[in-house]
Amino acid sequence: MKIILVGASGTIGQAIERELGERHDIVRVGRSSGDFQVDIADPASIRRLFEQVGPFDALISAAGNAHFGALEELGAKEFAVGLDDKLMGQINLVLIGREFANDGASFTLTSGILSEDPIRYGAAVSTVNAGIDAFARAAAIELPRSMRINAVSPTILEESLPAYGPYFRGFKPVAAATVALAYAKSAEGLQNGQVYRVL
Amino acid sequence: MKIILVGASGTIGQAIERELGERHDIVRVGRSSGDFQVDIADPASIRRLFEQVGPFDALISAAGNAHFGALEELGAKEFAVGLDDKLMGQINLVLIGREFANDGASFTLTSGILSEDPIRYGAAVSTVNAGIDAFARAAAIELPRSMRINAVSPTILEESLPAYGPYFRGFKPVAAATVALAYAKSAEGLQNGQVYRVL
Repeated sequence: MKIILVGASGTIGQAIERELGERHDIVRVGRSSGDFQVDIADPASIRRLFEQVGPFDALISAAGNAHFGALEELGAKEFAVGLDDKLMGQINLVLIGREFANDGASFTLTSGILSEDPIRYGAAVSTVNAGIDAFARAAAIELPRSMRINAVSPTILEESLPAYGPYFRGFKPVAAATVALAYAKSAEGLQNGQVYRVL
Repeated sequence: MKIILVGASGTIGQAIERELGERHDIVRVGRSSGDFQVDIADPASIRRLFEQVGPFDALISAAGNAHFGALEELGAKEFAVGLDDKLMGQINLVLIGREFANDGASFTLTSGILSEDPIRYGAAVSTVNAGIDAFARAAAIELPRSMRINAVSPTILEESLPAYGPYFRGFKPVAAATVALAYAKSAEGLQNGQVYRVL
């Protein structure tokens, strides 16, 4: 399969490439690195990406920014970061990408466990992650041409503990390589409309 | 209690007023009707509302627009309707309203069952509803001064069947009066961070 991997240089992206790279052709996409570049917060940039890459069999997104911060300091501006980038960025990868997708192509988006298990500083991220999961469930039943969509909702990564561990006390971390398996299940399997919690 | 009811003229809003009106002082707020007016998609309008109404003990929102439409016709613009109004409008009622809320005040927002049970034409609404639920769960653990927040997630209303029934085949409708009980539980009880599914 030709798999477009958005967020290829990230911790999860690299693990996905290690999991899928030997079996498939991976098109690495990043904000500033990789084979192609995209700013997912900009629909025009997304369209240019697909025009350059052409038809594909799977799109995997392990990308998206959102704002971490104390609820008392959150306002519309801080929420907009995640709504524009991690949420609508990934949704627009589907809404625009479907025009370029082969029959039966799959989309796999990335949310995160804060959707259901909130932490201090996480309100804007929780909001965005839950939206991604619900979009995957809903879009799944309307996608044409046997296309599929799933979301992967990981907990804190072992590799991210040095940076984020203090915010996730009591959460059992998982290795990025374990999280990567869920993307393989989504892209190489046939399930649709699933949210794969990797805990 | 002094309860601000945003969306007072709607089907759910009227049922909430019938449930709570005999026991509490209800401040009716609508887009164009009621004691005060607000455009929840406009943070400045929300701030003016709270400046006019003053301190309160409970805010209940049964308001918010989102776009229904076929996935194939959805783009960033259609998603923005619900993200700006039903999602961020209700979130901004909390983020701005907390400044004016009395100690121990409660916030109750409205989502909807499409968050977990999708229908044709509902992808943008599902996304928004799930975000509202997750925001309530997350904001609940960070709100100061013993403030609380919950969300009510109703299925299709009996009263809405003439307009929306064809889109909700197989869903068991509930009366608005039954849905209104969940708002009473939220505002008059002590629970926090809950999503009350009324099915």
